[in-house]
This record gives sequence, C-alpha cells and structure tokens, in this order.
Amino acid sequence: MKKHYKEEPWSIVEEGFHPEMQMSSESIFSLGNGRMGQRANFEEGYSGETLQGNYIAGVYYPDKTRVGWWKNGYPEYFAKVLNAANWIIIQPEIEGEKLDLATAQVSNFRRELDMRAGTLKRVFTAKLKNGAELDVESIRFMSMADDETAAIKYTIKSRNYSGKLKIAAAIDGDIVNQDSNYDEKFWAEVSKQTWAHGSELTMKTKKLDFHVSTAQQIVLTKNGDELDLSSVEASTEKYVENVFDISIAQGDEIAVLKYASNVSSLNYSLSELSSKSIEAASRAKEIGFNEMLQRHAENWRNRWANNDIIIEGDVAAQQAIRFNIFQLSQTYTGADDRLNIGPKGFTGEKYGGSTYWDTEAYCLPFYMLTAGNDVAKKLLLYRYKQLDKAIQNAGKLGFTDGAALYPMVTMNGEECHNEWEITFEEIHRNGAIAFAIKNYIDHSGDQNYLKEGGLEVLLGISRFWAQRVNWSKLREKYVMLGVTGPNEYENNVNNNWYTNYIAKWTLEYTRDAAKACMSDDRFWSDFVAKTNFKEDELSTWSDISSKMYQPKLDGTNIFLQQDGFLDKVDLTVDDLPASERPINQNWSWDRILRSIFIKQADVLQGMYFFEDHFDEATIRDNFLYYEPRTVHESSLSPCVHAVLASKLGMDEKAYEMYLRTARLDLDDYNHEADEGLHITSMAGTWMAVVEGFGGKRVVDGRLSFSPRLPKEWDSFKFSILYRESTVVLEVDQDKVKISNQSGESMAVDVYGTTYEIAGRDSVDVNRKR
Amino acid sequence: MKKHYKEEPWSIVEEGFHPEMQMSSESIFSLGNGRMGQRANFEEGYSGETLQGNYIAGVYYPDKTRVGWWKNGYPEYFAKVLNAANWIIIQPEIEGEKLDLATAQVSNFRRELDMRAGTLKRVFTAKLKNGAELDVESIRFMSMADDETAAIKYTIKSRNYSGKLKIAAAIDGDIVNQDSNYDEKFWAEVSKQTWAHGSELTMKTKKLDFHVSTAQQIVLTKNGDELDLSSVEASTEKYVENVFDISIAQGDEIAVLKYASNVSSLNYSLSELSSKSIEAASRAKEIGFNEMLQRHAENWRNRWANNDIIIEGDVAAQQAIRFNIFQLSQTYTGADDRLNIGPKGFTGEKYGGSTYWDTEAYCLPFYMLTAGNDVAKKLLLYRYKQLDKAIQNAGKLGFTDGAALYPMVTMNGEECHNEWEITFEEIHRNGAIAFAIKNYIDHSGDQNYLKEGGLEVLLGISRFWAQRVNWSKLREKYVMLGVTGPNEYENNVNNNWYTNYIAKWTLEYTRDAAKACMSDDRFWSDFVAKTNFKEDELSTWSDISSKMYQPKLDGTNIFLQQDGFLDKVDLTVDDLPASERPINQNWSWDRILRSIFIKQADVLQGMYFFEDHFDEATIRDNFLYYEPRTVHESSLSPCVHAVLASKLGMDEKAYEMYLRTARLDLDDYNHEADEGLHITSMAGTWMAVVEGFGGKRVVDGRLSFSPRLPKEWDSFKFSILYRESTVVLEVDQDKVKISNQSGESMAVDVYGTTYEIAGRDSVDVNRKR
Repeated sequence: MKKHYKEEPWSIVEEGFHPEMQMSSESIFSLGNGRMGQRANFEEGYSGETLQGNYIAGVYYPDKTRVGWWKNGYPEYFAKVLNAANWIIIQPEIEGEKLDLATAQVSNFRRELDMRAGTLKRVFTAKLKNGAELDVESIRFMSMADDETAAIKYTIKSRNYSGKLKIAAAIDGDIVNQDSNYDEKFWAEVSKQTWAHGSELTMKTKKLDFHVSTAQQIVLTKNGDELDLSSVEASTEKYVENVFDISIAQGDEIAVLKYASNVSSLNYSLSELSSKSIEAASRAKEIGFNEMLQRHAENWRNRWANNDIIIEGDVAAQQAIRFNIFQLSQTYTGADDRLNIGPKGFTGEKYGGSTYWDTEAYCLPFYMLTAGNDVAKKLLLYRYKQLDKAIQNAGKLGFTDGAALYPMVTMNGEECHNEWEITFEEIHRNGAIAFAIKNYIDHSGDQNYLKEGGLEVLLGISRFWAQRVNWSKLREKYVMLGVTGPNEYENNVNNNWYTNYIAKWTLEYTRDAAKACMSDDRFWSDFVAKTNFKEDELSTWSDISSKMYQPKLDGTNIFLQQDGFLDKVDLTVDDLPASERPINQNWSWDRILRSIFIKQADVLQGMYFFEDHFDEATIRDNFLYYEPRTVHESSLSPCVHAVLASKLGMDEKAYEMYLRTARLDLDDYNHEADEGLHITSMAGTWMAVVEGFGGKRVVDGRLSFSPRLPKEWDSFKFSILYRESTVVLEVDQDKVKISNQSGESMAVDVYGTTYEIAGRDSVDVNRKR
Repeated sequence: MKKHYKEEPWSIVEEGFHPEMQMSSESIFSLGNGRMGQRANFEEGYSGETLQGNYIAGVYYPDKTRVGWWKNGYPEYFAKVLNAANWIIIQPEIEGEKLDLATAQVSNFRRELDMRAGTLKRVFTAKLKNGAELDVESIRFMSMADDETAAIKYTIKSRNYSGKLKIAAAIDGDIVNQDSNYDEKFWAEVSKQTWAHGSELTMKTKKLDFHVSTAQQIVLTKNGDELDLSSVEASTEKYVENVFDISIAQGDEIAVLKYASNVSSLNYSLSELSSKSIEAASRAKEIGFNEMLQRHAENWRNRWANNDIIIEGDVAAQQAIRFNIFQLSQTYTGADDRLNIGPKGFTGEKYGGSTYWDTEAYCLPFYMLTAGNDVAKKLLLYRYKQLDKAIQNAGKLGFTDGAALYPMVTMNGEECHNEWEITFEEIHRNGAIAFAIKNYIDHSGDQNYLKEGGLEVLLGISRFWAQRVNWSKLREKYVMLGVTGPNEYENNVNNNWYTNYIAKWTLEYTRDAAKACMSDDRFWSDFVAKTNFKEDELSTWSDISSKMYQPKLDGTNIFLQQDGFLDKVDLTVDDLPASERPINQNWSWDRILRSIFIKQADVLQGMYFFEDHFDEATIRDNFLYYEPRTVHESSLSPCVHAVLASKLGMDEKAYEMYLRTARLDLDDYNHEADEGLHITSMAGTWMAVVEGFGGKRVVDGRLSFSPRLPKEWDSFKFSILYRESTVVLEVDQDKVKISNQSGESMAVDVYGTTYEIAGRDSVDVNRKR
C-alpha cells in the first residue's frame, strides 16, 4: 500500500516528478466524458516508461485468440479495448532539442485532478540540456457538455531563453495496443488533411471497419495576444501535424490552445466523418477555452449536486469516495444505450470487452440512484437488445428452445472470452442479469418494464436454468454440475450454492412475473406467439425450484460453497504468510483451486442479494464462516463484505472493507494501478457507503435506512434518487436526518420504524449505536 | 470409416490417383528410421492439397504461447515438432512446364508401402499440358542401416516426347510449420554450397539454436548408363539446387538417384556439420542404391524376425498389425536415449512435444518384448535423467523436499503444455512412470535397476503423492482434490479413483523397493545422502496408502470414477445419436464435462494395470459398468478394453476393440489421418494381440499365457523376448503351442498350468474355448 497522493477533499494531487510512478499516475489522473477518455499521458513526448491510452467508447478490436488448445464453442475473438489516435500531442522544441521530461531537469512538478470541475492541471519547470529553462503549465479536459470535444491549454514561459521556439501540434494514429497478441497494429489510415491552424486524421480499424476521425484546431497566444502565425503543415502515414516557429524572448509566455475532437462511425456516416470532426473542433474553438471550460464545469456541478457523498472527519475516505464517483461518472453517462461500463473504463486496456456481470451486480445501483431510472433502464435495455445473441450463445453450447446464456464478456452481445471454466461455466452471470430486473423494478416501481422486455429476458434465462440442471437419482434433487461461481478460485465444481440459489430464485421470479403479465391479454398473446411460451414451463420451473439441491453444513446455518468443500484443508487467511499474498501472484493455479481460500464473495454474494430471504443469524453465521477464508483478490469483493458487516453491526470490519475498496487504486493495494483503474468496483465503494453505512434498502416498496457511523467519521451525507424524488441522508454522532426534497409526502423507514415525511420536509431520528 | 487401401498382408497399396485422399495418404505412407522421418510427399512439386513434413528426431521449436489468459506456473513455450528442410525434391520440367500431378493428366497411379523391406514405391503416367507423356517410378527409403542417410530412385520414361528434359534436384529450407501460432518461420539459413553433382544446406532454428545440415549427391543414368552431365548450380535464400539439362528421345529412360543425408547439432559440433552431412551423402552414393537398399532391407528382416505377428484367415487384421509394428519400429529404435516416442512420430505436427505418459503406459511393453530390455531401459533412463527437471517442475507448483512431477508433455524434461487442467492436474502420469519401473523389473528380472535410478525416481514421485493428498476431516481419509484422470472428459475432479489408486500403489511399491535396497549399505548411505531421505517417510507413506479414499458404488464392486459421478444423468453410448459423435467434435466442452461419457479407459486403466489386485468378478462388474459409457475418443482407449475383454472371455467385444485400434488410421475412424498417424496407440494394438488374445502376463516371475482366438481368425502367432530368450506363441483352432527358442529350460504357464519347457523345445496345450 502506497500513500503517494496528497489527501484533499476535492482533488488528487501529486507533488514532485516521480517517473517510477508515472504509469500508475497516468491511470489515476485519467479523464473521460462517457464518449471518449484517456490516460494522463504528457502532451509533450516522453521517452520514459509510459502507457499511451486514448479510447473511444464502443470502438473495439476483435483480436484472434485461436492459439494453442482449442475447445468447441470458444469464440473466435477477444474484443479488445482499442488504443486510438493520440490527439494530445503538443511538442515544444528549442534549438533542435525536444522537451522530454525523461531527459530534461525537472523541478516544481505538480499535477492536480480537480474532481469538482473535471480538469487535469500540470505545472513544471524544465531545464533542457541546451540550458533553456521553461515554466510549463498544461490544463485539459474532455467536455462533458459537448462529448465530441476536448481542449488543452498549454502554456510555456521562458525563464532564460530568447530565440526560436518550435511547437508541433500533432495527431498520431500510428499507435500500438499494449494488449495485442501478435504485435500487430490495429489501425489503418483512411484520409488526412492539414490546414494553416489545424489538421484532421481519419483512421479505421483493420477489422470491423470502425472509423474514427480526429481533428485539431490550434490557436497561439503570446503574452495573452493571439498570434497570427501560419504553421508548416506536415503529414506522414497515420500522422498529421502543424508546426509553428515562434520567436520568444526571456519572460515571454506562449500559450497553445488545442481544440480537439473525436467522432466515430458509430454516430456518423463514413462520408461525413471528416467534416463532422473538423466541425466539432471548430465549434470548440469558436466557443473558446474559457467558455468551454465553464460549460464543462457546470455539467459537473449538476452531477455532484446529485451524486456527491460528504464525509466529515476523514479526508482519506472523503477523497476516495469522490474519486470513485468521479471515475464512474466520466466512464458512463447513459447518453448512449449501445455503451456499457468496462472494468477499466477509459484508463487501460486490461480485460478487453466492455460488459461483465459487474454492470448488473455492482454498477446498476449507483447509476440508478444517482443518475435515475432512465439511465438504469438503458443498462437493462442493453441486455434486452442482445437477447437474440444470448440465445445464439446458449445454442452454441447445446441449449435449445429459446434458452439464453448471456456472455461473460461482450462488446456487442457475442461472447468474447475464452477460458472454458469461465466462458462455459461461470453462468451465474445470467442470474445477476435477472436480479437486476428485479432490482430496477423494486426501486423504480416500473412494473411495466416486464412487458417492455424484462419478461422476455427472464424467460430466456429461466429456460437456460431449466435445461442446465439435471435430476440426480442419488440425491433426489435437481443438481447443477460443472459451474464456476463468483469465487473464480474454484472451477468446474458441482452445486455451487450461489448459482443454484440464484437459478432457483430466477425460476420463481420469472414464474411470478409471467403470472402477473398474463392478465394483459394483448401483451400475453403476443408474448406467447413471439417466445413460443408453453404454460407447462411454469410447472417445470416450480418443480425445479422446489427441489433444487442446496449444499449445507449439517447441523448449522452455513451453506456450503459447493460439493466437496469440506474435503479441503481448513485454514483461514491468518494462516497465510504475507509473502504468499496475493495468492494469485504466488501460487500455481491448481494449488489455488485446491485451497479453501475464496477470491471474492460467493455464498456471501447470495446473502447480499437475497438478504431478505434469510434471518440475521443465518447471515451472521455465514459471514463468520466465509469472511476469514476470503482473500479479496477481486476488486468486487470487499464492498459486499462491507455492506454485510455494516448490517451485522461489525463496524470495524465494515470500515476496513470500505477503505480497501475505496482507496484500492489511490493506494494501489494490488500493485496494478499502472495498468488502469478498477472502475466497476468503484460502484461497490458507493454501495458500501449507501447500502453499508447508510443501510439503504427497499422494503415493501419503501425506502429504508439503518445507518451506522464508523468511529473514524464525524458525519456523512448523501442523496439518492428514489422514484424521481431526491432523498438526502445525513448521519452524525447523534442523529440521522432524512430530507425529502420532492414536493410529495413520502414514507421512509429508519431503523425499522416508518416515518411519513412531507414534501420538502425532513425527519430527525436518534442514531443507533 | 473408409476402406481406401488394398488389404495385403505385407503392404499398403493405393490404386488410382486420389487427390482428396492425398493428405491422409501422406500420413499412411510415411517413412522413418528413428533418426529422421517424413510424410509421403511427392518428389516433384504438387500444387494440390498437401502437408509437407520432414522431421529430425530431437529437433523442436519452443513456440511462445503467452496469449490471452495466463496462469501462474504455465510454461512459457510449447515444444513443437519442427518441419525441417524438404530434401526429396526432384522436379522434372519439359518445355517450361513442370511436372505437377495437380495439373497433369494422371493415369496408372499406384503406390505401395512395402513393410517387409521398408520402402515406398510410386508409379504413374502423367500427360503434361504440352502433350508430353511420361511414365514415372519413384522408390525411396530412409536407411535403417545408416540412419543419417536416405535414397530415392526416380525414373522417368518418355512415352512420346523427344527433346530437352530439365531435372532440378533441390533442398528447400524455406518451409513453414503448419503448427505455428504466429505464421512465423522457424528456420534461418546458416550456410549452403553447391557443386557439380550435389549441394548442401545448413539451417538453424531461430530459437534453441538447433543446426541441421542436409546434403544431396545426384547420379543420373540414361537407359541404365551413368550420364556424365554437370548441373547448373543455383541457390537462393534457404534453397539449393542442381539443375540438369538432358536430351531424351521417345522411349528413353532417365533415372535420378538422389543420395541424401540429414545430420544435426545433437550429434556433431557446428563446425563439422556441413562436412559430416556431405560425407554421409557421399558415403551413400559410394555404396550405391542397390547395396544400400539391401542393407536397409536386411535390417528390417532382422526386426521382423523378432517382432512380427502372423494372423491367418483375416488379412485386414494381418495387414493392420504389421502396419502398427512397422510404424512403431521406424519411429523409435532405441539408438539414442535422448529420444522418445512422439504421439504422431514422424507423420505430422500435432501434439508437439515428444513425450507423453503414452510411452510408459502403452509403448514400453512393445519395445521391451520385441526390442529387448536394453531398449526398454533406455526409455526408463530418459525419465531418470530428467528427474531434476521433474523436481523443479513440482517446485513451480509449490511442492518441496524433492517431490517430482513429471511433465505432461516434454522434449527435454521441461513441461511445455499449457492447459491448467492438464498441466497441473493430470498428475496420474506420475503414476504411470512409477508403474513402468515395476513393469520393466517384472519382465527383465533386473532388480538392480532400482539402484541405477529406479528408486530415486520412485522416491521423487512418492514424495509428490504424499504432499499432493490431504487429510479430509469429513471422511477421515486421505483425499486427492483437483485432478484430471486419464478420462480427460472430466477436469478438476476430486478423488479420481484411478489417480488415488495408482498413488496408493506407488507409495507401497516405493516403500517395499526402499526396504529391499536398504541392505546394500553402500548404496543406501549414498542414496540417503543424495536424496536427503528420512526413514519416517516410509511410515508416512504407509499411513497414507492405508487410509487413501477410494470412491465406490455402495453395495457393489464398482469403483466410482470420481466424487459426484452418480449425480450425472445416467446414459450409455447407445443413447447418443450418431450425428453427435464424436462428441468432442459436436459438443461444447462444458456439456462433455457434465455428461457421463468417458473419453478413454479410466477406472478400467486401473483394472488393466492392477489386474492381479482384483478378483475377476470385480473386473467384470467394472468393465460392464464402464464399457457402455466409454466413447473411445482417445486412440489409447480401445486397446485397454480389448485386453480386458479378452481376459473376461468377451471375444466379440475384444475383436471389435482390436479392429478399432488396429485399423484406426488405415480406415480413418476418427477422420483425422490427414494430420498424422496415432503412433503411440499402435503399441496398444500390439498389446491387444499379445496381452489380449495371447493373454500374456508375468506371474510370479514366470511368463503366462491364456490365449483366446477370435472366431474371425484361423490362427495367430507371435514371438516375444523374455529375459533374453525368444518365446513363440502359436494359437490355432485346436491348440496352443509355446516354443522356447533359448538354450535353457524355462517354466511357462498356459491357462494357469505351469509347464517346464526345455531349451529349443516346445509344448502343445489344447486351446480353451
């Protein structure tokens, strides 16, 4: 664990130049606006260790994976996040020497991610080998208000040099993907153009034919006055630039204003792509840097008004939760229902494809309760639109009659992951997608969503479960063989309790949902015709769910993670030497599989989802059994434990788990921030505060809170959107305050007691210890 | 199943030109001599579908495999069989048109593999587009008498053409591997030279620096008289050739005699490599084609004298067993203890690395009983020499204190397979390596081998088993979690009966072997010092073996393949639609894993190895349970079932299984002969005759036979080497005859009765029905 960044409530600050931290800082200081994003690479060239990253949402590359041992049913490709053209390049040069922080003497280095305004600022002084000393300040952002555009203001002040300063503003499309199996480049040039103050480059991906056009418009000022300089226009393959020759004297300040745009064939026809990107860059230039920044900051202000969480008395926790919310907000905005939330967002290439079960299991609550039901519904519709492909996917594995298996990893509905134990067996993902429908309906009250697609998705998933189980004569129960549960440190096990349970639940929920929809004759006849639904499916589901095998430890409340779990050597995490952790970096796979150690919440994931199905003693017993055996080597694990620990009143454990999830990347717990941030687990951090410390639930259609205040905090406060109303929870040492910001009266439970809160009113309740 | 080749007792004959069968025939007609081998590619260029293949034993390529998802402990490379320089090229050309059977009109095509003499002969008439008609005959062999050399006699007779005939004799090193993940070429040129009647090319592998030098010496005759023609010498990168311009008239017969050699850096220093290969080619030329062929055929005659199996009344069975013996004999000769037996021998690239557990479990008996104890011992020493690497390999998986895990696939002792469920979990291979030591000692009587390395290997393996099991509190037994048994259609299962049993057996055998060696004080003290052996290891092993869990079906004799086996849907192979077989080409992996269907003998492999541990009722019950559930989708499966069926008197099942293993490639049961032959399973065919129909066993140090005669056969006869004596078994309708060809008296059991047979005498016993 490293404490590298200054703890500030609203910003992340790095002081001093730390090349050894550059890769991690590039991740931490990433920017995005839902449509595009980038790592915090330097504008000027950097010959030190760096991972270039410019990403366009929805643009990916299907890299071939057919290497080595193959299995029937594997996908032909792995969808890779695509590193796109590098548009930030601003390269100062003096007397033939390019500014490069790896070779210059650097001082006064500082960078700051201002989370309130969504900007990245960097200042430094560089002394070149030729003796020239420059003060540089760069500030940039990707506009949230106009998501095709971005801007950089790059200011150079000469401390001691007088003479020629050359500045190249470039777009470089000749980039490589770090995650390329074959060291192949994924982009080909389509067209390019340059003009006096700008240039444009259109590239296309070698497969799938995604086109992206990137443009820049450049304005130069000297000591605040705009320079009327023409550039030398230059281009080589996949590269365009405008080079300006400027005379400067000691003390002069040159500012380069770069207005940039990225547009893609997802949104425009190929013929208009270049003109649209030039148009966007020109639009930005016309608005001007300051006004553009103001509109961007305004957009962020509105977001923070809805989704900020205020923690007093613990600046590390305050900074962390804002960092998590900031990253989530700039990764997915809900503006485009073809997009989803990639595990690394716009901060790195790892994990490729964009959509995992993370979306439904972890991210949905955050977007639903901060951005609202419309955004949440877009995430649901994303899956509904891919139902046909999920049915095809199940078909590849031998399932029939409309059974649907959603992919483990996808960009467009097709599976693109190829480890058999995951691709074919980690099928609990289907359950999370069903659960998200329930979760959305519970929160939104939008029962009608069942008819808008929800029931079809539930049907496909239930048909899958009904075919995936088999009757065990031995047990006289339905069993589910050969699965991988959320705990991926067990593969191809029989009767993973969590998977069996969520399958059983899906069947019951689908049955009830179907029955609820039947009374709408017109809907129902269409539905039956479209899906070829047969009424006896209902009784099949009831039969399976009532006879589903659920492994349990005899004489206890403890559900067994899977068959054979008790054959393992019984150890707890305390028995593990520190030198062997994380075990996934120190143990061979077979040893991990044989061991009792649990990667992430598995039985406890079930306790979390279905908390209302179990009494507190059962949840407690399972928590006390599994928590000590869980190594939390998935970023998705501590948040679930944090929520459960809060529920059980284990405040210290909850706080420990909260910090672990909240500052995972800032403090780089797992030594991997360099490869990008854990975006989806950041939603888990939010969950740990809202559902954990806040104890937020929905009970019988009512919001409910059971707040716990960690002893490290003076108070905390958050607001959520519930059925179109904003509700604010404030918790301090003494009391819990619930404010209903809507115009209508609302019933809210606090610690199990229901309070009717009038519109624009609030209620105070004594805090429970 | 195809019946493409004529059934002849001593040869494989293809009549007519069948381009659609060319790839398969290239495999079937493969030649080799233990040191090098090749597919039956045409000498002249062929633009139709073909898989070029020239292989040098022991020369491989470590192709990178680090693609996609990685697991700790995986090897960095996969050792690939390397396609080496193509040295057979003889290219006739008339008036600018090259002879190419894909473009010429072909008639009278016939090829014959003469298994008695080890030659491949091909004749055809080709009419070129320009009208020239040629009768061509090619005969070639790779010398068994001088394994660095090979020769081709390629005869062209003009039927209608008079004029210039151009003949290029070439060596082409610019070849590709079919099995290349990255479409990369694996060879680089080192040097080359040409002279009037020959040329030489030295290539090296881009990794590991294997050098191979290939040379040719060319002699031309016209109507039987040697031509004194100089060639045009030519070379390009990785390519050398001698081109001869010959005047021919209608009716003239030109013969090209090509004497070739391959030598490698395995046997010579780099500086002498070129000269050694030229020397070898020149040596061949000096001896001359006819004499060279005679010495080669003589070598084969001697081999057949020891290893032939004669079957009367069933020419398909006769041809098949000889084909199997022929291929085994030309794949491995025992001349070099660094070599081993690859699953495809010299007939294709699939499966890469050379050594699997196939060697110990299937191949050892054939070589031991036909080539003798010295050759068998070389196979054992191969593993002994790799013990250090096996200990390192176990170390990578977290095992300590001298525990050894032999690799699943290897060229040099290092693991080079990377599927976790195989690499890390298919650990029963360790047991087969231990069992081979017992098998060798039982047959040879060479108890001393324990002290020559056997005990060290046993110790390493036993230490592995002792660490690999764990104590299950639940069962109060030792269990073995997370393994893959011989039936690879189950992965990561707990308590595979076969693996548990062979582990238990290894521990007991090692304990007894150690006790037997202890009395040799000098050996023992050296052994203890070298291996750091502790006496309490013996009691640990006894404890584990006495408390090893062995899953069993309650109230029966049936051992359960693994925990949870009875949860599966109970089906037999008869329930499988023909269209879904083989299931490995039609079902997704998860479906295969969940199903009850068994790829290859698993519990029955244990019944086969440890037949003497079980009464016949137990073997029968297990056979009757597992045989109907076995799909035999491994070539290693039917032979084991054949042996057991013979033992149980199920003659029809035994015969069915025999034919399936014996004619697997000739009749191409699995539609994959095009990619090479199943060399290691050919030893299983031999086993099916000798141990199956012959009922050969070793009982209390005596040879024992219990022959069964399939009703399709009139008689069969084979000889084996037992403790340096040749023993011949002849079985006909009425009697069983055992001949002792040694000078000493010998006790042999027939149907359970012991007969003392004097030297050079025989005994007749009535055949049991």
